[in-house]
Amino acid sequence: MNGAASLVKTLLGGGLTTCFANPGTSEMHFVAALDEHPELRCILCLFEGGTSGAADGYNRMSDAVAATLLHLAPGFGNALANVHNALKANSGMLNVVGDHADYHLRFDSPLKGDVAGVTGTVSHWVRTADDARSVAADGAAALRAARTMNGQIATLILPANTAWEDADGPAEVSPPPALQRPSSEAIEAAAKALSQPGAALLLGSRAPYGETAELAGQIAAKTGCRLLADFLMRRMERGLDAVAMDRLRYVVDDNVGFLNGTTNLVLVGGTRPVSFFAYPGKPSTPEPADCALWELCGPGMDIRWTLEALADELGAGTAQAARVAGAVPEVPSGSMELEKIGQAIAALMPENAIIVDESVTVGRAIAPAFSSAPRHDLLSTTGGAIGQGLPVATGAAVACPDRKVIALTGDGSAMYTVQSLWTMAREELDVTVIVFANRGYQILRGELANVGVETVGRNAVRMLDVDDPLLDWVALARGHGVPAMRVEDTDGFVAALRRSLGVSGPALIEVVC
Amino acid sequence: MNGAASLVKTLLGGGLTTCFANPGTSEMHFVAALDEHPELRCILCLFEGGTSGAADGYNRMSDAVAATLLHLAPGFGNALANVHNALKANSGMLNVVGDHADYHLRFDSPLKGDVAGVTGTVSHWVRTADDARSVAADGAAALRAARTMNGQIATLILPANTAWEDADGPAEVSPPPALQRPSSEAIEAAAKALSQPGAALLLGSRAPYGETAELAGQIAAKTGCRLLADFLMRRMERGLDAVAMDRLRYVVDDNVGFLNGTTNLVLVGGTRPVSFFAYPGKPSTPEPADCALWELCGPGMDIRWTLEALADELGAGTAQAARVAGAVPEVPSGSMELEKIGQAIAALMPENAIIVDESVTVGRAIAPAFSSAPRHDLLSTTGGAIGQGLPVATGAAVACPDRKVIALTGDGSAMYTVQSLWTMAREELDVTVIVFANRGYQILRGELANVGVETVGRNAVRMLDVDDPLLDWVALARGHGVPAMRVEDTDGFVAALRRSLGVSGPALIEVVC
Repeated sequence: MNGAASLVKTLLGGGLTTCFANPGTSEMHFVAALDEHPELRCILCLFEGGTSGAADGYNRMSDAVAATLLHLAPGFGNALANVHNALKANSGMLNVVGDHADYHLRFDSPLKGDVAGVTGTVSHWVRTADDARSVAADGAAALRAARTMNGQIATLILPANTAWEDADGPAEVSPPPALQRPSSEAIEAAAKALSQPGAALLLGSRAPYGETAELAGQIAAKTGCRLLADFLMRRMERGLDAVAMDRLRYVVDDNVGFLNGTTNLVLVGGTRPVSFFAYPGKPSTPEPADCALWELCGPGMDIRWTLEALADELGAGTAQAARVAGAVPEVPSGSMELEKIGQAIAALMPENAIIVDESVTVGRAIAPAFSSAPRHDLLSTTGGAIGQGLPVATGAAVACPDRKVIALTGDGSAMYTVQSLWTMAREELDVTVIVFANRGYQILRGELANVGVETVGRNAVRMLDVDDPLLDWVALARGHGVPAMRVEDTDGFVAALRRSLGVSGPALIEVVC
Repeated sequence: MNGAASLVKTLLGGGLTTCFANPGTSEMHFVAALDEHPELRCILCLFEGGTSGAADGYNRMSDAVAATLLHLAPGFGNALANVHNALKANSGMLNVVGDHADYHLRFDSPLKGDVAGVTGTVSHWVRTADDARSVAADGAAALRAARTMNGQIATLILPANTAWEDADGPAEVSPPPALQRPSSEAIEAAAKALSQPGAALLLGSRAPYGETAELAGQIAAKTGCRLLADFLMRRMERGLDAVAMDRLRYVVDDNVGFLNGTTNLVLVGGTRPVSFFAYPGKPSTPEPADCALWELCGPGMDIRWTLEALADELGAGTAQAARVAGAVPEVPSGSMELEKIGQAIAALMPENAIIVDESVTVGRAIAPAFSSAPRHDLLSTTGGAIGQGLPVATGAAVACPDRKVIALTGDGSAMYTVQSLWTMAREELDVTVIVFANRGYQILRGELANVGVETVGRNAVRMLDVDDPLLDWVALARGHGVPAMRVEDTDGFVAALRRSLGVSGPALIEVVC
């Protein structure tokens, strides 16, 4: 057995089942070893940003770690933006990055690069395998690292000769270390803080869905505190009957207003709120200056235990969490208005859908309708690097083959990782992609105004607008093997959405707005 | 005047005229400053790999440095693969990478990342501006660095507040330091070595075109040494009447045979030949064990002076360089054969065209015809990270608006930076893109066989083939605003090529092969 075979058997034995791959020559022994194990599902992405974003989406919906298979430093570079986003989503991910045979690295070959350097900028854990006989143990350590602290970015660099030289056999993957928990004093202090007038409980990372969302809802019901969630979301439950919680805002001034009057802010699962960008004369952090900040439980700690302990301390076990009430909106009709598009999606989407949201500026108009949609999961952008939406939708659909995925994306954003459409078609993933074609980086138009530019000249227009020529999303989708339609009014959108939701498999709707 | 304005004026004053841009919020003040100076041409790329590849192509054809404008660590990550390729092409490039305002960096905002870390892995020079009043001097130093040693990767990190805070005014860009030259002893020794039986002069980087190619041809004529060029080429003159030189090969065994009998290998402009990858039991370096290696002049040294000194030493000034002789082939017809496609391109391409070659496996069949094409420049992949072809063609076309660019690319490769098609359409660049649709990573099929895999199972097939669904290149091109045709025989190809070469502007031909 060679090193590659020992590594594949180690990962399979450790419970890894899925690999999003974009391999090259230096990974061929690993590919050959994977070929012996069809039970490890290998999914090809035609660009590496698709692999890392898919591993992120897969982890968000399954909590299981997927692997990526990447080719040297440039391959990892292509994956980097979505590794960054996954890191900010606290996703666990195992990157296997091939490198040259170690003895080849003393020469300046074309693909030689700083693999450890570039992977280290976005990984919690990096190791370069140095022997075929230890690569199985390295793989076991990498998979454990990817599962540590709820989920980390672990990167194993695999010099080609450690894959092809002789190995002994697979290694066992040990469970990750126990999660850290807050002290009982910290729980007591936070419980007291939450009982003050003006208190808020802010959930991030793995907190705002599932049983932890229920626990948080009980705590809020018992104490009367506000229940909040981060603006950028790994995952959140939303829609009718979900535990009621309010999301932070994107715009600095909105957030300042949103948190105005907050006296105590208790953080569970997330980190301190901070403005997306700094602006001249505006604050970096939105909470009031006299607000006490309680960083009770970070994203890598034991979130569930923390909320249970808080609920116990407060005697909240019998409280009833407030839930989102209302009725699914009517199906709208008539001319194109973004609010109506939001309503149409809310009206027509099935129960238990997964919405992947990279709709950027458009999202502000369509999102309000989703609170009265059937209950669903929301996965939003996390690290701010655009091009996350289509890959995350890909990974979510792989993780949840029985659930409809709806990917909302701006046209500018979708272009960064447009190749994910092909993987959706190849794997027959049940994803409806809705591209909002506003034909430019509309958010940057707003940002340019924010910095005080009133008249926009040729250079700025040419850097912010994506018209001349217009992108034809129907052609782009078909080029990747995905059926598509363009709609220019609400009735057309409703018809296209009904059609795509009515069948399984990928489809794209271009909304001209 | 703010820091951004002082920086733009500095770069303009220093002779920078072109910026390939993919900006975000943290670059809005820089965008606003660019907007005041329409004489600095800003070209939008819809993905960052397009910016860095275009700056590379621009430098190869003009020897002038272009800027890229990128957005924080993830934006640079997206550009990284083609920065790597540009580095291996010895291209000069100035990356301006926005970052958060310095005071915002102490918070863990979504886009916070290790900008210095990731840029440092592929840059010769990195500096983070730390004050609006010194950012002009930083920009001047960066532009000088990009011009140093014939061309380097220089990266200036621009925290947003250094762009928006008050500055004094522009700075002056000083010329780069003088290029290093070999000692006279080294010239004498190399001249002696070249006069030995079995000697070869190997040209790399800036050597195999223009006056340096002529000088090298005279030296070869005088000494009788072989005149060779690197396999991966920044740029090379090829076709009828070009100085005759033979390129190294891609396949290890071919290269070993190619250099068999070489007694002395003198390197000018390039570095020691090394196999692209290591393979079990095969050598990393192709020259014979007893071949003397003379690393006379590296890519960052004074190549022209070196060749002049060598020619003087040898008294080669009146020698006549051997030139490529022959006749342009007839226009072929009939069924699809790659050799005929090569002949058709050679027969129909205009004098003085620029061929950008990322045709990978297909190239081996079509390339032989190009030696009897009209004289042209060849720009090949350099760093081995695929996705270089379309962006380099974009930059070459911007640099040389009066020359026809022909981009040859595999379908797998083209998908990595397919968004460059849109920039070609937007800027009306005169590029004919020829996509060889062999529907897979054919090179990896060969590599898998090289590692000893005889039967290929489901996982390997699914990672090497790009069919199911087929990519529709005509639709993909039209989606980006580029007219396109699919051809399935030689006659169809000839007609499509005639049409696209007969007009100015971008076009794409999908060759099903």
